[in-house]
Amino acid sequence: MDKMPLNDETPLDLEALTRALCAAESYAGVYHRPMHNQPMPSVEILSEIVERLRAVLFPGYFGHSEVTPESMRFHAGAELDVVARLLTQQVKRGFCFLCSREAENCQDCESRSRELAMLFLSRLPRIRRLLATDVQAAFVGDPAAKTPGETIFCYPSIHALTNYRIAHELNDLGVTMIPRIITEMAHSKTGIDIHPGATIGEHFFIDHGTGVVIGETTVIGRNVRLYQGVTLGAKSFPKDDSGKLIKGIPRHPIVEDDVVIYSGATILGRVTIGRGATIGGNVWLTRSVPAGARVMQSKAGNGSFEHGAGI
Amino acid sequence: MDKMPLNDETPLDLEALTRALCAAESYAGVYHRPMHNQPMPSVEILSEIVERLRAVLFPGYFGHSEVTPESMRFHAGAELDVVARLLTQQVKRGFCFLCSREAENCQDCESRSRELAMLFLSRLPRIRRLLATDVQAAFVGDPAAKTPGETIFCYPSIHALTNYRIAHELNDLGVTMIPRIITEMAHSKTGIDIHPGATIGEHFFIDHGTGVVIGETTVIGRNVRLYQGVTLGAKSFPKDDSGKLIKGIPRHPIVEDDVVIYSGATILGRVTIGRGATIGGNVWLTRSVPAGARVMQSKAGNGSFEHGAGI
Amino acid sequence: MDKMPLNDETPLDLEALTRALCAAESYAGVYHRPMHNQPMPSVEILSEIVERLRAVLFPGYFGHSEVTPESMRFHAGAELDVVARLLTQQVKRGFCFLCSREAENCQDCESRSRELAMLFLSRLPRIRRLLATDVQAAFVGDPAAKTPGETIFCYPSIHALTNYRIAHELNDLGVTMIPRIITEMAHSKTGIDIHPGATIGEHFFIDHGTGVVIGETTVIGRNVRLYQGVTLGAKSFPKDDSGKLIKGIPRHPIVEDDVVIYSGATILGRVTIGRGATIGGNVWLTRSVPAGARVMQSKAGNGSFEHGAGI
Amino acid sequence: MDKMPLNDETPLDLEALTRALCAAESYAGVYHRPMHNQPMPSVEILSEIVERLRAVLFPGYFGHSEVTPESMRFHAGAELDVVARLLTQQVKRGFCFLCSREAENCQDCESRSRELAMLFLSRLPRIRRLLATDVQAAFVGDPAAKTPGETIFCYPSIHALTNYRIAHELNDLGVTMIPRIITEMAHSKTGIDIHPGATIGEHFFIDHGTGVVIGETTVIGRNVRLYQGVTLGAKSFPKDDSGKLIKGIPRHPIVEDDVVIYSGATILGRVTIGRGATIGGNVWLTRSVPAGARVMQSKAGNGSFEHGAGI
Amino acid sequence: MDKMPLNDETPLDLEALTRALCAAESYAGVYHRPMHNQPMPSVEILSEIVERLRAVLFPGYFGHSEVTPESMRFHAGAELDVVARLLTQQVKRGFCFLCSREAENCQDCESRSRELAMLFLSRLPRIRRLLATDVQAAFVGDPAAKTPGETIFCYPSIHALTNYRIAHELNDLGVTMIPRIITEMAHSKTGIDIHPGATIGEHFFIDHGTGVVIGETTVIGRNVRLYQGVTLGAKSFPKDDSGKLIKGIPRHPIVEDDVVIYSGATILGRVTIGRGATIGGNVWLTRSVPAGARVMQSKAGNGSFEHGAGI
Amino acid sequence: MDKMPLNDETPLDLEALTRALCAAESYAGVYHRPMHNQPMPSVEILSEIVERLRAVLFPGYFGHSEVTPESMRFHAGAELDVVARLLTQQVKRGFCFLCSREAENCQDCESRSRELAMLFLSRLPRIRRLLATDVQAAFVGDPAAKTPGETIFCYPSIHALTNYRIAHELNDLGVTMIPRIITEMAHSKTGIDIHPGATIGEHFFIDHGTGVVIGETTVIGRNVRLYQGVTLGAKSFPKDDSGKLIKGIPRHPIVEDDVVIYSGATILGRVTIGRGATIGGNVWLTRSVPAGARVMQSKAGNGSFEHGAGI
Repeated sequence: MDKMPLNDETPLDLEALTRALCAAESYAGVYHRPMHNQPMPSVEILSEIVERLRAVLFPGYFGHSEVTPESMRFHAGAELDVVARLLTQQVKRGFCFLCSREAENCQDCESRSRELAMLFLSRLPRIRRLLATDVQAAFVGDPAAKTPGETIFCYPSIHALTNYRIAHELNDLGVTMIPRIITEMAHSKTGIDIHPGATIGEHFFIDHGTGVVIGETTVIGRNVRLYQGVTLGAKSFPKDDSGKLIKGIPRHPIVEDDVVIYSGATILGRVTIGRGATIGGNVWLTRSVPAGARVMQSKAGNGSFEHGAGI
Repeated sequence: MDKMPLNDETPLDLEALTRALCAAESYAGVYHRPMHNQPMPSVEILSEIVERLRAVLFPGYFGHSEVTPESMRFHAGAELDVVARLLTQQVKRGFCFLCSREAENCQDCESRSRELAMLFLSRLPRIRRLLATDVQAAFVGDPAAKTPGETIFCYPSIHALTNYRIAHELNDLGVTMIPRIITEMAHSKTGIDIHPGATIGEHFFIDHGTGVVIGETTVIGRNVRLYQGVTLGAKSFPKDDSGKLIKGIPRHPIVEDDVVIYSGATILGRVTIGRGATIGGNVWLTRSVPAGARVMQSKAGNGSFEHGAGI
Repeated sequence: MDKMPLNDETPLDLEALTRALCAAESYAGVYHRPMHNQPMPSVEILSEIVERLRAVLFPGYFGHSEVTPESMRFHAGAELDVVARLLTQQVKRGFCFLCSREAENCQDCESRSRELAMLFLSRLPRIRRLLATDVQAAFVGDPAAKTPGETIFCYPSIHALTNYRIAHELNDLGVTMIPRIITEMAHSKTGIDIHPGATIGEHFFIDHGTGVVIGETTVIGRNVRLYQGVTLGAKSFPKDDSGKLIKGIPRHPIVEDDVVIYSGATILGRVTIGRGATIGGNVWLTRSVPAGARVMQSKAGNGSFEHGAGI
Repeated sequence: MDKMPLNDETPLDLEALTRALCAAESYAGVYHRPMHNQPMPSVEILSEIVERLRAVLFPGYFGHSEVTPESMRFHAGAELDVVARLLTQQVKRGFCFLCSREAENCQDCESRSRELAMLFLSRLPRIRRLLATDVQAAFVGDPAAKTPGETIFCYPSIHALTNYRIAHELNDLGVTMIPRIITEMAHSKTGIDIHPGATIGEHFFIDHGTGVVIGETTVIGRNVRLYQGVTLGAKSFPKDDSGKLIKGIPRHPIVEDDVVIYSGATILGRVTIGRGATIGGNVWLTRSVPAGARVMQSKAGNGSFEHGAGI
Repeated sequence: MDKMPLNDETPLDLEALTRALCAAESYAGVYHRPMHNQPMPSVEILSEIVERLRAVLFPGYFGHSEVTPESMRFHAGAELDVVARLLTQQVKRGFCFLCSREAENCQDCESRSRELAMLFLSRLPRIRRLLATDVQAAFVGDPAAKTPGETIFCYPSIHALTNYRIAHELNDLGVTMIPRIITEMAHSKTGIDIHPGATIGEHFFIDHGTGVVIGETTVIGRNVRLYQGVTLGAKSFPKDDSGKLIKGIPRHPIVEDDVVIYSGATILGRVTIGRGATIGGNVWLTRSVPAGARVMQSKAGNGSFEHGAGI
Repeated sequence: MDKMPLNDETPLDLEALTRALCAAESYAGVYHRPMHNQPMPSVEILSEIVERLRAVLFPGYFGHSEVTPESMRFHAGAELDVVARLLTQQVKRGFCFLCSREAENCQDCESRSRELAMLFLSRLPRIRRLLATDVQAAFVGDPAAKTPGETIFCYPSIHALTNYRIAHELNDLGVTMIPRIITEMAHSKTGIDIHPGATIGEHFFIDHGTGVVIGETTVIGRNVRLYQGVTLGAKSFPKDDSGKLIKGIPRHPIVEDDVVIYSGATILGRVTIGRGATIGGNVWLTRSVPAGARVMQSKAGNGSFEHGAGI
């Protein structure tokens, strides 16, 4: 039925193909009918918003690179004024995207979007204070880093954490869709996938980063360090009586202060990694670990030798 | 020999350097001599083709975001008409790229390219039907997803599968080069590397996705779920008598319906993972597994404790 | 203090927010004060430089795709002339970025930057010769590759190695910042993170690549092959008396000729993987391995079976 | 007062300069305070609208150049759907631009904007019919034109008339600001300045065009031809009792059918150029001319000779 | 019939409007059916061609601005190689645009296009030699010019003459459509409209330029200077027996060496302006003028005085 | 000699053509050798500078369109800070362009460029005050203008005068090249060619504008109005003993307050148009005119009638 046979003489039957793809039974489930005449959130504009915020948060590193302490406030003020407007609009589009037809009190939605954007902006000083500790963490945590500035300018960790810390505050304020798009941008660029719902304390560092996954209900304390390929995931997904996943319940690890987790380790479920613990590379862990513990892959995992054997 | 010593007084000897780089013995092996006056396939145009197809497959989510059921067919028809032309040209370039000098029946190649592009387009309704099941799989498989639409708009799984399902049909029709470029685009963006030759059934979901590798001859059934870092790879590469790799023989796993494979698991070789089996995280597997089996990393792998030890 | 409460009636207090973000105590640690009036290195221009070099190194594949042996030298010469100028400027910016205020002999810095750019260019024939062996390695190492050209045009391995081999020569010449930005570009695109300080011999191949990490002091011989997710990392970070990390000491593995390391394997510390050894997938290794050895994950790691159990 | 003296030691006093420029008495008269939170009309989007309309009006010449009679309706429909939305928004912005603070019934304004955009679109067939006659006029009127198609693709006359005929219909419907911006775009590109209020009959041609001015209340019949530098202007501007210009009264010429006006001629005031009249180049005319008349510059104007004189 | 009445309740009837615009009787005369599957000439690519030629003709002023005598030939060679290919394609599209359906010997057309592009390129040294004299003419002719280089970089005269001299050679070789598009680009930018068919000798200067028109069969000698608003046009357009314009016959002025024509002068018909003659501003001239003559507007034209009169 | 004959079998001799074009005798006179390693002034950056200044001068009309009195100073300050840096660089490039090899005190040139850029910026309040009067002049002078804002947003007069008033101040400060490029940008867009050296008083209006030329030493008083095609030019160009044009002497008209000059009028030489005079359209004038005079084209110029005559 899907196939419309063609041969050398038959040109594309554009009419038939279009009709097939525009039949309601074909597009059901993959078509987004815009609500309240509002277009989709724009990935381009969200990207612009994040880049403008990066310029505000790290003056001189991003945006206008010759900013001085004297001219800084003009640049910061101008960026923030633009962000306030753009973000209000995107927050609203995020609400409309998930809006059910019946609820149409758009006037409220408009003013709520603006209020949330303003509240978010008022948290920028705090976001920056946290990021400044992350920069220190990257510098002291990586022997290859020569200056803290280098980590701001080109380390995936700082890039991903900036997006995450922005997205987390938006998520915390109840903004929908937008936070996820913002962390997904960083995921695409860095390979670091942090859900905006996760809670992450100050002085956090992820070295290399590719393949790191930090789930929605994860809680991470202060001064934690992760390496590439670490998963902080869910172990199982409880379903309700009707067989549907129960969404939103705590299901990811709690990682306490001063923990280090080496590359490829996987920690699943609502377990607690106690303060100062060290989790070795490639470890698979589904239970809690006391403070100060050192968990390594079993000796056997360290490889068995066979000389001269082909694979 | 490669070094042309310079000192403070010596400016770049552009002449000598250029001569060195344009010597036949230098560029042999890294120079592409265009066949039949045909330029290389264009990554930019292939990207445009895929984005136009995304707009057709998921109306309202991509492309013109305010499309209505009434205006949909105009937009779909216009996109498809453009894609038909662009794709014909790229398919032909893909053939020319691999063409040996002698075979120059270009007239046939032109018409064959067009026919293949048309045949591909006729399969779009089927591609969409499969993707619609993938969207459902993403929604029911991720407790963090609030709506199916969210997974269409910003989940790496749907992005990568759209590219894969497009590329797979092109590959199935005998198109060369182009399918690989299309899946590689998704690999770069999502970290999910699916070979266009792989066969994947409906209702497929890859959570997070970074680091997933699905090899050329893999066969995946219906309702399978993978997590980040899963490899479905080849175990060994048989060589022919002259010591060259034999290309194209089945060498990747068969994964039956309803299987779940957790993060970091590696399954190599033409083994079969039986229906409904569960493969735990970080597992290394090179033999078949019966239906319903549950394979976990060894207990030792779950970590040994040592209190208070430094690393 | 960070929070400036807002309610429905309060518009954004742009003045107060800007003042908060432009207070010296807020921006300390995250502000880059440009040295010697020199802007930051430009990621855009470095990207342009690398693309122009790619066009020179692989004529016909990148840049002007219809280049002939006759016209090649015009295109190569023009690209190199532009690169010489752009690179000189970026090298200088890299120095200025790390420059301490006192040392201001900028005149020297200018001429040194130009000299380094020229020296780098004189090494291009060697870089190409190495890359030509990498292309062969990719072709013979991947059964899915139909021609060597295909690996040049769309394999992440060749993309990442081109950036790395460029960055490595720059790093070797003492250029700062710029090499790291160049390898980070490839990391973002391919998921392959190679530090420019690493030493890598000819005929090197990384299949799939996502999640591969190769540390700063790694030494890799000839004809080595890695798979996705392999880490060649440091095991520990010695600190000096004042508790600071000692930077620059050898701390990553030595991998001798003809070694193969399968996906997800992690090798940490200044250990030696002897010539011709094979390291299996997901193996965690922190000690040396003799030539010809074959190291596999322990059998237990190959998974224990339980039938019919839910997860 | 405007000057802030600087000397070698004084850097820019950004603070003082900004304060001077942001003082209300400085920006009064040159600042646009947005009404109803609505941004300015966008020259970029209006340009996009006009280009999309050009693609619809002249299929194959502009927009998708390989349109066929079979695929035409998809492209036309898609363009029109996008134009409907974009134009509605711009029409509304045009109203807001001129809106006085008190009148704020924005809901009406929104629906009126949409209605006007729809009414405009319904006139496109007529606009095209007129333009088709203009194309014929250009072809028969210029011995240098080899085909009518050439005049569509690259003659300033058709470019300017397309913008004018679009703008005129919008103006006729009561749309503000937008029509003027659309004709001004064509003025900038072609040097032909036609006020959207002018009335122009079918089969109209302006050769070369630079410097042509056609005023707001001009009325031009059928089959009229103008050359470059022709002005159809106002002679005087009556003022009301308070000394203000009275706006909108008929003050430009009426040019009847079949008139030809040669380059540089200036016709001012509400005079009538009778049917079939010919007005010579550089003529200055402020009174009516009967049908069939031939008006030339005085003989003396044809130049007096002096041999050998220097200038 | 064209009007589809709408009221407040009626949304756009996209279906009906599209049907109306896609009816054959509506699009007849304004639709371009592509011949031989060839798209329209591309204004963007022609613009790129001209800019690349400008870089070759005026090294250091346009294109790569830091070209040295040593690196010049690499840049020139690379530009010319690209232009050869782009121009061949556009020349062919120009032929196809005017092609009648029957004549379809496309193979010939392809090789003829390439030959013409090559012949054109071989004339570049001559084109540059002429332009070098035009630069001198601009410098000595304008008291405001401080250096010849300034006239190359920002005088409309040199810009327009570069386009014209390129277009003229193409026209001379029998290329269709393309030359006209190239001069029209300069017309749009400078207000100077020179038909590519015109013949213009060396050392030519047009000051200011806006409104200048030089017709298809005009012949201009050496060392001629024009001011803005000068028309060298046709006086009448002979028609054949069937009433159609006879195209291509000489109908524009011959302007001999050393003539100066001041602003606004209009010279029409196949008249000859003798060597060294001076034509005053705003003069209207339709007969020949002997060598050395000085033609001025009649004294009366110099204005009559009336004191104190209002307009 | 220029021609390199080609026939069907001869491909482009890229080598020979390049050699011909890179021979010193070919490029002499059309090659710019960069002085002091400084690239050419950049038309793109000068355009950016002017657009940023337009945003500062007319807040809300250009640049960020939703600026409020509260946020204005942030936007203005940020724009000015960027302009200060960009302009300094361009001013310096303008000096280098004209620099003779010997004079190489570049350090001075750098600081002088910065000082001039700062001095220019300090004059912005005055520039705006003048432009505010020009806006009023446009509004009261054109019956078609409905609001002053409309003239700011889309009248060629205001566009050209903004560029002129910026360029004039730069010219007045002794900046070279840059002012001319800035007025030429407006000339290209509007057809209005004002030399930056001209002196123009407040409340100036040019209606329509195409073809207007205002020469280098013109002096225009307050409240003057011009129409399209008006030339205020030089009558003759005195040469020195060696036959070279003497540059810079007063040679253009003085136009006193309250003068109106209608379309196409040409006034040449250092004549004075007395206060309140009116100059009619197409008038050619080379002598002074007393205050209050009204100069019209001679009656004969108003056209002679001949009934029924063909042209």
